[in-house]
Amino acid sequence: MSNTHNFYSVANIKNVPYAIQEAIDFKKIAKPQIGLGKTMVLLFFNSSLRTRLSTEIAARNLGMNVISLDMSQSWKWEMEEGVTMRFDTAEHIKDAAKVISGYADIVGIRAFPSLTDKVADYQDDLLQKFMHYADVPVVNLESAIRHPLQSLTDMMTIKEYQKIEKPKVVLSWAPHPKALPQAVSNSFLEWAVAAGHEVTITHPKGYELDDEFTQGHTVEYDQKKAFAGADFVYTKNWSSVSQYGKILESSDKWRIDKDLMSLTNEANFMHCMPIRRNVVATDAVLDSPNSLLYKQAKNRLHAAEYVLTKLLKNG
Amino acid sequence: MSNTHNFYSVANIKNVPYAIQEAIDFKKIAKPQIGLGKTMVLLFFNSSLRTRLSTEIAARNLGMNVISLDMSQSWKWEMEEGVTMRFDTAEHIKDAAKVISGYADIVGIRAFPSLTDKVADYQDDLLQKFMHYADVPVVNLESAIRHPLQSLTDMMTIKEYQKIEKPKVVLSWAPHPKALPQAVSNSFLEWAVAAGHEVTITHPKGYELDDEFTQGHTVEYDQKKAFAGADFVYTKNWSSVSQYGKILESSDKWRIDKDLMSLTNEANFMHCMPIRRNVVATDAVLDSPNSLLYKQAKNRLHAAEYVLTKLLKNG
Amino acid sequence: MSNTHNFYSVANIKNVPYAIQEAIDFKKIAKPQIGLGKTMVLLFFNSSLRTRLSTEIAARNLGMNVISLDMSQSWKWEMEEGVTMRFDTAEHIKDAAKVISGYADIVGIRAFPSLTDKVADYQDDLLQKFMHYADVPVVNLESAIRHPLQSLTDMMTIKEYQKIEKPKVVLSWAPHPKALPQAVSNSFLEWAVAAGHEVTITHPKGYELDDEFTQGHTVEYDQKKAFAGADFVYTKNWSSVSQYGKILESSDKWRIDKDLMSLTNEANFMHCMPIRRNVVATDAVLDSPNSLLYKQAKNRLHAAEYVLTKLLKNG
Repeated sequence: MSNTHNFYSVANIKNVPYAIQEAIDFKKIAKPQIGLGKTMVLLFFNSSLRTRLSTEIAARNLGMNVISLDMSQSWKWEMEEGVTMRFDTAEHIKDAAKVISGYADIVGIRAFPSLTDKVADYQDDLLQKFMHYADVPVVNLESAIRHPLQSLTDMMTIKEYQKIEKPKVVLSWAPHPKALPQAVSNSFLEWAVAAGHEVTITHPKGYELDDEFTQGHTVEYDQKKAFAGADFVYTKNWSSVSQYGKILESSDKWRIDKDLMSLTNEANFMHCMPIRRNVVATDAVLDSPNSLLYKQAKNRLHAAEYVLTKLLKNG
Repeated sequence: MSNTHNFYSVANIKNVPYAIQEAIDFKKIAKPQIGLGKTMVLLFFNSSLRTRLSTEIAARNLGMNVISLDMSQSWKWEMEEGVTMRFDTAEHIKDAAKVISGYADIVGIRAFPSLTDKVADYQDDLLQKFMHYADVPVVNLESAIRHPLQSLTDMMTIKEYQKIEKPKVVLSWAPHPKALPQAVSNSFLEWAVAAGHEVTITHPKGYELDDEFTQGHTVEYDQKKAFAGADFVYTKNWSSVSQYGKILESSDKWRIDKDLMSLTNEANFMHCMPIRRNVVATDAVLDSPNSLLYKQAKNRLHAAEYVLTKLLKNG
Repeated sequence: MSNTHNFYSVANIKNVPYAIQEAIDFKKIAKPQIGLGKTMVLLFFNSSLRTRLSTEIAARNLGMNVISLDMSQSWKWEMEEGVTMRFDTAEHIKDAAKVISGYADIVGIRAFPSLTDKVADYQDDLLQKFMHYADVPVVNLESAIRHPLQSLTDMMTIKEYQKIEKPKVVLSWAPHPKALPQAVSNSFLEWAVAAGHEVTITHPKGYELDDEFTQGHTVEYDQKKAFAGADFVYTKNWSSVSQYGKILESSDKWRIDKDLMSLTNEANFMHCMPIRRNVVATDAVLDSPNSLLYKQAKNRLHAAEYVLTKLLKNG
C-alpha cells in the first residue's frame, strides 16, 4: 500500500483504486492479530469522537495495545530549531517525537489548524516535523490541512454505493456558525482524483479551496447546476482560504434540503460528522434512505483496520 | 436476567431475588472470557472513581476492550428533535448514539441531573434517548435519577450480611454541604422493594423522595424511632425534590453517630461513597466493625461483572 | 528486590548494584506474562508523558490491564485524620486507598510538591498515606521528593555506558524559568550512593539540597572545577530548598554548553526530560554523540518492566 512508512496523505498510497477495493474486501475477513505485543500511541491536540473510537478499536482488533493522550492538557511543544526555550514551550517536538517513537510502534496524531496563519497551517508543521523526527510510522488523524482516514473511508463508501462506472460526485459547501478547517475537503479532493473521480465543487465566491487540492476537479458556483444529475452529494463547511479562516456567508441559502436533492439522480448524501442538523442539511435529507451518514461512520473503523494492518506488515 | 437488552433500572431484571443470589454466586467462579474481541465504550459526563474502575475492570475481566471518554471535555449534544443547531450543540444525540453503537458492543453512560429542572431531570433524557437510538445494550452508570449498578451492589451486600429472613432496613438522610442528586436513594428503594425489603425512610420534612420510588416503603420523620431495631442503616444525602435541588437542612442533627447506631440491632452501616467523614457520619461509625463501606465498594466490581456477562450472553 | 511490597524509594531495594545489573539483563529477555488477569491503576495528580507511556506499556508488556486516571480532574482528597469534611475535600485518602486497592493489583501515583511548604512536602504525605492505607503494592511515579523509576533508569544508563570501574559522576544544577521540584535530584543522589557512586554536586550558593540526600556526596560550588575530568554530567534544575521553592539564580552562567563539556573526560550528558533546549543546555550538547537523552528515556520502559515484574512476583 505505502510508498513510505507513514499514512499522512494519499501520496503514501501507490495504487489508490486497488487500495480502496482491498480495504472493502478486508471488511469481510477475520482480522489478523499482527499487532500483538505492539503499542499504538494516539496524541489528540483536539477533541475527537469517531476518530478516537474507530482508531482505538481498529488497533485493538489487530491485537495492539493503545494509549490515547489528551495533549490539550499537556505542556506545549517547541516547533522551531535553535530557539532558547525560555517561554511557553516546555519540550521540543524533536525530543517528544524521539521519546514517543522509542516506546510506540505506531503513533497517531490529531492537530487542527490555527485558522489565523495560512502559511504556517499549510506547512502542516506538527505532523511534518513529528514524522521527520519519529522512528516509527505516523498516522494522520486529521492535521491542519488533511484527514486521510476520513477520505479513504469516503472513497470506500462511494465505491460500495456507486451504481455506474463514472458517478457524478459533488462536493458542496454548506453553512456553519463556526469557522472550520479545510482538511476534510482538501483530502476528499486529492483522494477523489486519485480514485478516478472528477468532482464538481460548489461553494459561494470567496470560498475557493487551495489550488494544490482542486486540480483535476471543476468549480460550479451555481449550487443548483452543480446538483443536477449528481450521484453523490458530499457536504462540508469550510472557512475561506483567501480571507483565511473567515466566515463570508452565513445565510441558509446553501443549506442542503430536499429541493436541492430533488435535482440530483437520487444522489446519496454524505458528511464526515459531527453534523449540525438543519444548519448544514435538513433532517429530511439526513434521515432519508439515501443518507450514508452512519455507513460512512462505520467505515472509519474498517479504513483504520486496513491502514494499520498495512503499516504493521511494512514495519 | 434482562427483559430488555439494556441495564437501565430494576425493571430490566425479571426475578430480582434470584438475580441477587446469582450475582453473589458468580463472585466465586472464574470469569468466562465471553467479551473477547468486543468493546465497551464508557461515556462520563461527570466525574467517577468507583464506577469507572469497577466497570472497566469488570469488562476487561470478561475479555472486553474498554474505552472511557471524558465527555465533559467534548462538544455538547443536542437533545431535541427538529432543532436548527445554530448555537451551542455540535452533534445530535441521535447521531452520536448511532455512531458509537456502530463501533461498540456495549455502551455505559454516566450523566447527572441539572438539579434545576425537576421535570427534565426526571424524564432522564440523556439515558432514555441514547437507549432509544442505540443499536447495542446500554448500561446506566448513574443517570439523573437512577444508579442501578450501585443498587444491585447494595442488595448483594445486604443479602451477604443479613442474619435474619426479614431484616429491618433503614434509609437515612444525612447532611452534606452540597446539593446532591436523588439517584442513589431512588434506585435503592426500587431495588429494595423488588428484593422483598420494606424500607423505613427517615429524613427531615421537605426531603420527601418522589412517589415513584417510595411505594412499598414507609416514612418515619423521627430519625431515632426509625433507627430502633434496625439491622441495616443505609445513609445518603439528597437535595429536596419538592423545592427541587435545594438544601433545606444543614445542621449536624441528622449526622449518623454512635448514639444513633446504639439504638439499632447492631446494624451494619452502608454508604455508596465517596463520603464526607464527620459530616455524613462520624469516624467512629465509618471505622467500626459494622461498617460495610469497603465491602460494598468491592461488590461494585462483582455487580458489574455479573451485569456485563448477562448482557454479553443476551447479545 | 524489595524488602517491602512497595516501590517508593531506594530503601525498597535490598542489593542495589545487583538490582541494576539484573534490570539491564532483563532488557534482553522476553517478558513473562505474569500480569495476566491483573490490573494496574495509575493516578496522575500532575501531567506526565514519559512516565505514563513507559509505565503503561511496561505493565501491558507483562500482560496487565492498565487504567490511568487524571486526578487533577477529580474531587480533592482529605489528607488529615479526624477532620469534619465540610469544605473542599470530598473523599478521605484512607477511603480512596482502600477502595482503589480493592480493585487494583498495583497502584502507581504521581503527586508533585506544593513548593510552598517544605515541611509538608518533605513528609511526602500523599504517597506515604496512600501506602499506609493501601492493601496492594504502590509504585512512586514521582512524589513530592522522590522519583525512583527515573533513578533506577539513570543508574542502569550509567552502568551501561561507564568505561571505568569508578567513573566521576557530576550532578549539575542548571537554569530554568520555572520553580521546579527537587525530586529527581534527591532520588538520583540516594540511588547513586547505594550504587557506589560518590557524586560531585555543583550548584549556585543557596541551592543546597536537603541533608537527607547529599550524604556520601560532595559539593563543589565552582561548576568548572566540578566538570573537570567528569565521565557523566547529570543535569537538572531545582528550586531552592532553604528559601523553599524560590528561584535565586536565572542567568545563563550555569547553562551546560560545549565549553563546559570540554573540561570533562568526554563525559556523557544526561537529563530526565522534558528539557528546555538552550536554557538548561545548548543544542550542541543535547545533540552531540555523547548525549544519552533518548537512551535514558528508553530505559524508563525497561526499569518499569523490571520493577513491575518484581512486585508481581512478590505479590
